[in-house]
Amino acid sequence: MRMIDIIEKKRDGLRLTGEEIQFFINGYIKGVIPDYQASALLMAIYFQKMDARETFDITQAVIQSGQRLDLSAVTGIKVDKHSTGGVGDKTTIVLLPLVAAAGAKIAKLTGKGMGHTGGTMDKFMAFKGINLALSSEQFVNQINKIGVALQGQTKEMVPADKQLYALRDVTGTIPNTSLIACSIMSKKIASGADAIVLDVKVGRGAFMTDIEKARTLAHQMVKLGKDMGRDTIAVLSQMDEPLGHAVGNILEVQEAIQVLKGQGPSDVLELCLTLGSHMLVMAKICQNRDDAKNRLLEQIANGKAIEKLKELVTMQGGDPAPIDDDRLFKRAANQIELLSEKDGYVATLDARLTGQASMMLGAGRITKESPIDLTAGILIHAKVGDWVAKGSSLATLYTSDDMLLLDSARQRLQEAYVIKSKAPRQALSIILDQIQ
Amino acid sequence: MRMIDIIEKKRDGLRLTGEEIQFFINGYIKGVIPDYQASALLMAIYFQKMDARETFDITQAVIQSGQRLDLSAVTGIKVDKHSTGGVGDKTTIVLLPLVAAAGAKIAKLTGKGMGHTGGTMDKFMAFKGINLALSSEQFVNQINKIGVALQGQTKEMVPADKQLYALRDVTGTIPNTSLIACSIMSKKIASGADAIVLDVKVGRGAFMTDIEKARTLAHQMVKLGKDMGRDTIAVLSQMDEPLGHAVGNILEVQEAIQVLKGQGPSDVLELCLTLGSHMLVMAKICQNRDDAKNRLLEQIANGKAIEKLKELVTMQGGDPAPIDDDRLFKRAANQIELLSEKDGYVATLDARLTGQASMMLGAGRITKESPIDLTAGILIHAKVGDWVAKGSSLATLYTSDDMLLLDSARQRLQEAYVIKSKAPRQALSIILDQIQ
Repeated sequence: MRMIDIIEKKRDGLRLTGEEIQFFINGYIKGVIPDYQASALLMAIYFQKMDARETFDITQAVIQSGQRLDLSAVTGIKVDKHSTGGVGDKTTIVLLPLVAAAGAKIAKLTGKGMGHTGGTMDKFMAFKGINLALSSEQFVNQINKIGVALQGQTKEMVPADKQLYALRDVTGTIPNTSLIACSIMSKKIASGADAIVLDVKVGRGAFMTDIEKARTLAHQMVKLGKDMGRDTIAVLSQMDEPLGHAVGNILEVQEAIQVLKGQGPSDVLELCLTLGSHMLVMAKICQNRDDAKNRLLEQIANGKAIEKLKELVTMQGGDPAPIDDDRLFKRAANQIELLSEKDGYVATLDARLTGQASMMLGAGRITKESPIDLTAGILIHAKVGDWVAKGSSLATLYTSDDMLLLDSARQRLQEAYVIKSKAPRQALSIILDQIQ
Repeated sequence: MRMIDIIEKKRDGLRLTGEEIQFFINGYIKGVIPDYQASALLMAIYFQKMDARETFDITQAVIQSGQRLDLSAVTGIKVDKHSTGGVGDKTTIVLLPLVAAAGAKIAKLTGKGMGHTGGTMDKFMAFKGINLALSSEQFVNQINKIGVALQGQTKEMVPADKQLYALRDVTGTIPNTSLIACSIMSKKIASGADAIVLDVKVGRGAFMTDIEKARTLAHQMVKLGKDMGRDTIAVLSQMDEPLGHAVGNILEVQEAIQVLKGQGPSDVLELCLTLGSHMLVMAKICQNRDDAKNRLLEQIANGKAIEKLKELVTMQGGDPAPIDDDRLFKRAANQIELLSEKDGYVATLDARLTGQASMMLGAGRITKESPIDLTAGILIHAKVGDWVAKGSSLATLYTSDDMLLLDSARQRLQEAYVIKSKAPRQALSIILDQIQ
């Protein structure tokens, strides 16, 4: 088999066989197939697409490129959740303790954040001393004991995905639904979950700005998950404006704690109940979604959800004290307000620009190696539909960086806001669709 | 400017600016832009094409990547000729002395042959002692003195073309007319010719098997040449069966000598008169093509053409003796006959299979570094339309290699022949079209 023939076959619009795809992935991770042939094939795939069978085959080859997490020692159905990434998305911090408190088992592998969306791994760093490098044994034991454990992704898992993603990132070959589905699902499946809930974000602040493309991706991932023998469901949720009020690592953890205490913003709660109720049904803890939502609300009301977060943080060596008293969280050195220049209704709060402003404050990464300021971010006071008076604060910006950057970030955030005299039409729910 | 933006722009079907194309070529030859980004862009170009302006810009950038040959010291109009490559194509060996004898100036740069088509450089190696590495001064002086000089291509000329071609060859991005036109024309223009005649081969044994695609390429190259300020004409010629009767380096040189002596096959003569008459008209030696053809035939009849070949070989240090007595050429150690298995007419003689058989005999190169057997090749006795008796010889195969390969080559050549009871319909001319 020769790589050049595989490239030409796909270039000419033909289907690749499982053997050909395996040959490509194996050769690529071994370094036998060079980057320049891989990128030519990826660009040919961009134009000619891959069908469901090819997508299955490449996902399987990527999973087989590394180790799989063995969760056979965990009793019961393991559920997992994945978000395609949005601004202010703290749902995982809420869902881990909430769903575990309700009785499901969650083995969570997580990564660092890139660009204007933050990673769960970064956010949990808000708890001093937390250890996200557990041994396999510790990880499995903890899930059996308290229902949930959290761990950074290891190099040994899906190495082909890491290598392919890095190449796609610099060769204009990211936007292909088969390759995106492969990248997401290979990690989830190698992580050993039995059931997977996908949160596909749609809108200005999301990777997918178009609902139809998002729906196509969601369908492809759900089919792929099922073909791989995993119960899979996708929720499409709105990401035109940021989720909740907090953007930035520690700020988002604080908001997640509020949600777990029953004091969080309604959009975050709604999304967490939607995703969490699917997880409980898939874990066979509840018979239907309504029961599941009630069970989740119960865990918040009786304090078990917030207790589970403390348990999780403590078990992994972190300091849980700020969960009870959020003044104990580290705070940013500098803060300024963004004031409204006129009276009116917030018509738009562009999530992408908000995310960029937050990144300028130091809350996001430009490269994998960039340092991150956990205290940096934005607290939004006025969201879409809110009436604001001239001179009132729209948002507070936090950073440990110098005032110069703070000012450019404020300008960027100002661009994110559109204020109009008429109240905007608003959607009733941030849930756009559910695919199963 | 970032390469990733250039890739995405072309991927999305937009036109690249001259600056962007220059940035790519310059960055690529400097090693700042890696192969994997270059190959992704080339694949995007394959799918989205380049227009005439982009093709002009990439050709200019490729030319500027290296040195140009300075022929300003040569008096008169310099004409050049290029073939896209065919089996048994010895026209350059005929045309160099023939056109020079008729009074035109030819500065010929030539390369090694690859695959099943031979290179002019290899063929001239048939003359013992010949030097194809002249200094610039020697090259220019010789053209001024005898009208013609021949030289191997230097590394300093169009380095970007060499690098791009090598990458395209292993990434499935060869078949794009803009990139092919760029590769051919950049070399011709950097070589300093004022007028260029292109021989675009069409058919089984050619790079272009489809007449319409060949016509598109020819139009693109003629436009590109003219846009670059060079008088350019393209001739489309048939390459379904080999040209003439000889395939293989020394065998082809012998046939070229026969043509120059007025004893060559009619198809080779016809093509040489067609290409050569264009060259004479472009060089303003003759007013029209008919005059030019007569002038060329005159050079053959009065012996000046064959004398010019001796002069050329002698001036460049080669031994001209075999031109008068072809028994002095080196001969292959082994030879076998391919006999006809039945009575009938030759309906097909597949040029590609013939070329492959010749390569198996040792006459062609598999990689740039492969050694080549100058004596190897095929002498064809029966061409399309000829009647053959069962048991008569269709062709003689020559090689210095062992008998085992000789036998596989004979089998391959056997596949090239189709013999039928009815005489095939034949084209009147091997010239398919002329584009100017």
